[in-house]
Amino acid sequence: MKIVKIKEKPVPIKSDIRNAYIDFSKMTASVIAIITDVFKNGERVIGYGFHSNGRYAPSGLLHERFIPRLLQADPTEILNDDGSNFDPHRIWDILMTGEKPGGHGERSVAVGTIDMAVWDAVAKIEEKPLYQLLADRYRNGEVDEKVFVYAAGGYYSPNKDLSKLQEEMQRYLDQGYSVVKMKIGGDFLEEDLRRIEAVLDVVPDGQSLAVDANGRFDLETAITYAEKLEPYNLFWYEEAGDPLDFELQANLPNIIKTQWQQEKTSFLCKMHATL
Amino acid sequence: MKIVKIKEKPVPIKSDIRNAYIDFSKMTASVIAIITDVFKNGERVIGYGFHSNGRYAPSGLLHERFIPRLLQADPTEILNDDGSNFDPHRIWDILMTGEKPGGHGERSVAVGTIDMAVWDAVAKIEEKPLYQLLADRYRNGEVDEKVFVYAAGGYYSPNKDLSKLQEEMQRYLDQGYSVVKMKIGGDFLEEDLRRIEAVLDVVPDGQSLAVDANGRFDLETAITYAEKLEPYNLFWYEEAGDPLDFELQANLPNIIKTQWQQEKTSFLCKMHATL
Repeated sequence: MKIVKIKEKPVPIKSDIRNAYIDFSKMTASVIAIITDVFKNGERVIGYGFHSNGRYAPSGLLHERFIPRLLQADPTEILNDDGSNFDPHRIWDILMTGEKPGGHGERSVAVGTIDMAVWDAVAKIEEKPLYQLLADRYRNGEVDEKVFVYAAGGYYSPNKDLSKLQEEMQRYLDQGYSVVKMKIGGDFLEEDLRRIEAVLDVVPDGQSLAVDANGRFDLETAITYAEKLEPYNLFWYEEAGDPLDFELQANLPNIIKTQWQQEKTSFLCKMHATL
Repeated sequence: MKIVKIKEKPVPIKSDIRNAYIDFSKMTASVIAIITDVFKNGERVIGYGFHSNGRYAPSGLLHERFIPRLLQADPTEILNDDGSNFDPHRIWDILMTGEKPGGHGERSVAVGTIDMAVWDAVAKIEEKPLYQLLADRYRNGEVDEKVFVYAAGGYYSPNKDLSKLQEEMQRYLDQGYSVVKMKIGGDFLEEDLRRIEAVLDVVPDGQSLAVDANGRFDLETAITYAEKLEPYNLFWYEEAGDPLDFELQANLPNIIKTQWQQEKTSFLCKMHATL
């Protein structure tokens, strides 16, 4: 059992949307196919992987380091003990060989995309859906019959007025989503509050709406937004500050916790939980 | 005034050395040349940049994102107000356009290498050494006549016994270095202590030797090493734990500070300062 070939292709996923930090005018994503020498029901097993938007296709890293490392590994080193399938954990260790700690960025996207394709191949070789395989291995076979999902949208884009934002959110509700998410922090606070109130006119209540600042705020702005958002009783307030703004990350939960201990509202407690 | 072309080349800097985390058998680094249309004394101004070892040449990222972004920028946007030189800060902002916050890894290497080449070009256009240009801009022209440097070596490599380690350190002393650094954490504690003691037999005293664990240790091991290293009164103890092991990073200074407050030694205080 071996990997015959690994293909990677960067695909454009550009659009005119933007969040508080970046626009998506040149956005790309990698699609990976891990082609194995295993056949099931007359079909060759190929594992597929792709990654989320926002960090661009790490094609260079994949072709310079991670794909060659995997293809050059001793074939027996990437299999499980009885040789009946690929071992994603051993493959992960091979991918990360020679990698310094810290500074995960594009690297984690590259390795994660290969990892997704590996798990896809592993599940196909066991002829099970991946959710069932994961449940069998790590959860005594117990599968969740339902999972929570939400519609992440509400981006800024040119000529998108409040009515278009409302139409977008209505579409998500029509598709069956019970929670929608919208971007904040890409406009003035007052305009963001108008946008939030417009969406709240469409969704059942604040618990149907989450907001995402994509790391845009400094501590003061993060708190100002929190105070203004509080009365809406929103579902969550995501990524208030830069993940590498350690001072903000250290202080914001404490400030919020203090406010929560003063029993201000449960919203700030929830905000704390999502940081 | 404009950038005519940007060249990048990954160059192998492979060797058989290793630190506590990675070996350098496939190590590469990017070399960048920013070719301008400026001529000084009959020579075209070209800014050069390269990066430190340990994270591989980010060639893909450079050619996929950062070099095109800079070349596609409006030429007037990359100049200072009077158009007399390139503006490294404006260029930095252009390079980071469309980049999500957080997850700096290869990205910071790529941008930093371009940044180095930009500053080199800027200094050449002002016909000053870069240290003088930086002093003029940010330090009222005051230049340090001396800077502290140390020799970072003492890697692990095959068949490198204690006498070879000692010879290496002696070479650094002969070259005029007053402080040398060696790797730790790539072998058992007892062996590392033997290696340290071998080097201490060569250098004047503990204050001439720094050690670097390259992020290898968990909290318990980091503290065990600290306790064993303390009597040597070393110059510093570098990168004890993984930079993304936030629990270790949060706890280690507190533990050390507590010990320091109990007036154990100044060494642990210094260790605190270098974390």
